[in-house]
Amino acid sequence: MLTNRQIIRIEWGDCDPAGIVYFPRYFEFFDACTRALFEQAGFFKRDMLKTYGIAGIPVVDLKTRFIVPSRFGDDVTVVSSVAKWGDSSFVVRHRLMKGEAMAIECFETRVWVAHPDGDPEEFEARSIPEEVKRKFGVVEPQREE
Amino acid sequence: MLTNRQIIRIEWGDCDPAGIVYFPRYFEFFDACTRALFEQAGFFKRDMLKTYGIAGIPVVDLKTRFIVPSRFGDDVTVVSSVAKWGDSSFVVRHRLMKGEAMAIECFETRVWVAHPDGDPEEFEARSIPEEVKRKFGVVEPQREE
Amino acid sequence: MLTNRQIIRIEWGDCDPAGIVYFPRYFEFFDACTRALFEQAGFFKRDMLKTYGIAGIPVVDLKTRFIVPSRFGDDVTVVSSVAKWGDSSFVVRHRLMKGEAMAIECFETRVWVAHPDGDPEEFEARSIPEEVKRKFGVVEPQREE
Amino acid sequence: MLTNRQIIRIEWGDCDPAGIVYFPRYFEFFDACTRALFEQAGFFKRDMLKTYGIAGIPVVDLKTRFIVPSRFGDDVTVVSSVAKWGDSSFVVRHRLMKGEAMAIECFETRVWVAHPDGDPEEFEARSIPEEVKRKFGVVEPQREE
Repeated sequence: MLTNRQIIRIEWGDCDPAGIVYFPRYFEFFDACTRALFEQAGFFKRDMLKTYGIAGIPVVDLKTRFIVPSRFGDDVTVVSSVAKWGDSSFVVRHRLMKGEAMAIECFETRVWVAHPDGDPEEFEARSIPEEVKRKFGVVEPQREE
Repeated sequence: MLTNRQIIRIEWGDCDPAGIVYFPRYFEFFDACTRALFEQAGFFKRDMLKTYGIAGIPVVDLKTRFIVPSRFGDDVTVVSSVAKWGDSSFVVRHRLMKGEAMAIECFETRVWVAHPDGDPEEFEARSIPEEVKRKFGVVEPQREE
Repeated sequence: MLTNRQIIRIEWGDCDPAGIVYFPRYFEFFDACTRALFEQAGFFKRDMLKTYGIAGIPVVDLKTRFIVPSRFGDDVTVVSSVAKWGDSSFVVRHRLMKGEAMAIECFETRVWVAHPDGDPEEFEARSIPEEVKRKFGVVEPQREE
Repeated sequence: MLTNRQIIRIEWGDCDPAGIVYFPRYFEFFDACTRALFEQAGFFKRDMLKTYGIAGIPVVDLKTRFIVPSRFGDDVTVVSSVAKWGDSSFVVRHRLMKGEAMAIECFETRVWVAHPDGDPEEFEARSIPEEVKRKFGVVEPQREE
């Protein structure tokens, strides 16, 4: 299973007056880690949008447990992989590690969407191409035909 | 039950290249709405931290469904209330409304924490004072004494 | 001269471990204030982009003095107006006031840009329509013809 | 002269609906680059604050020219160095490079500040220790005494 590891330095500006990461910043980290995971699979976002004619892979569901806080100056590692593939959606699991300890666990459900009829204001879910899933190591189920 | 309604203008800078809100921004909105909810209950954050000797009310669990996207120029309303009180934690429910439609639903679990022994690098859960809960309309359970 | 006044509540998440606003946040405030100033002149950004076929009004030069810091819980007022109009650029002056004191002064130079030939990756300066300037109270110079 | 080079990947979430970096994000980059420059000089921010008893090095003046926009997926390099040392302030120059072209030039003036009498709500400029300047390659001027 394709897994991405990203070391992130917690910056002063990521932290709040309590000196720990202001929680919305973690989702910026995780979004970048999903991007990096796709890149590891061979999909550079700017090209991917063009190649597949999609508008993006927006998050539609998010479940996150914050277990241990992080402070500016900390180096943390985010380990990311796709936990589940659906037809038009998929779930990315991110684990933010501080050494051996899992400090945060996040499950992002994202959808493969396009603009129907090229209308930039509308979004419509599309089936994720099999070749995309294959690049993540998904073995195509055998179909009886 | 105490409820806060906050109208939020979606700004250009809240949005991503798809023209819709970059999802981590929503958590900045919700955090501000929790602050506003407490203020409505009579707790101005800066004073509250001093009065109760706490370091903050960090989020430890987050569950969010993103149903309808929002775009720059939209005015949305966030309706917030405390859905559940525990001893040292509580759950805030935010509903981001676009007209009559619920566009996002978020459940934030937060903990009432202090720095043990004044050590600014450590955090420890504390019991939420009954007077805080009362200000939110919580009726204290009858205790047999 | 058209002037916009915007009251901004400094949020917990706007502040850094020193308890004061993390300076990049101010530029998010100012960007929203420029948007509000245009709206006061009758230009709703989403419509304005369509009406005039522009891609935006990006900042090309910024000069800012930070005089007094602000802390979470502060209510500050940003007073904004166009200090100067050029052919394709203009300068917005923002003053962030804490009571009577000017806490920050910022000069944003912005350019009226379009995508040449509809190419979304290219930007080209365009002359600002006279009707836009007029709405801001600019008296058109008399031309001898 | 000590110089720091930092490669930064422009993320989707750094960009606005025009597909280019939302300008306040650049200041987050530059702030992180100033941090990295200090680290290269041997000063890890968390330790530096403790060692010298300071509250931070807030920005008091900012001058920035935005010459070429950047888009998500771009890798840019920020070259940072201290352009000038004063008694209690210093100027950091950041150049954001896209290949050989300077896309942004920013001059950040920062002040070395402490909390007078330990009051966390007050800030006071302090003389920058000579050993800090020396680590950046500043040769101490000869004094006649």
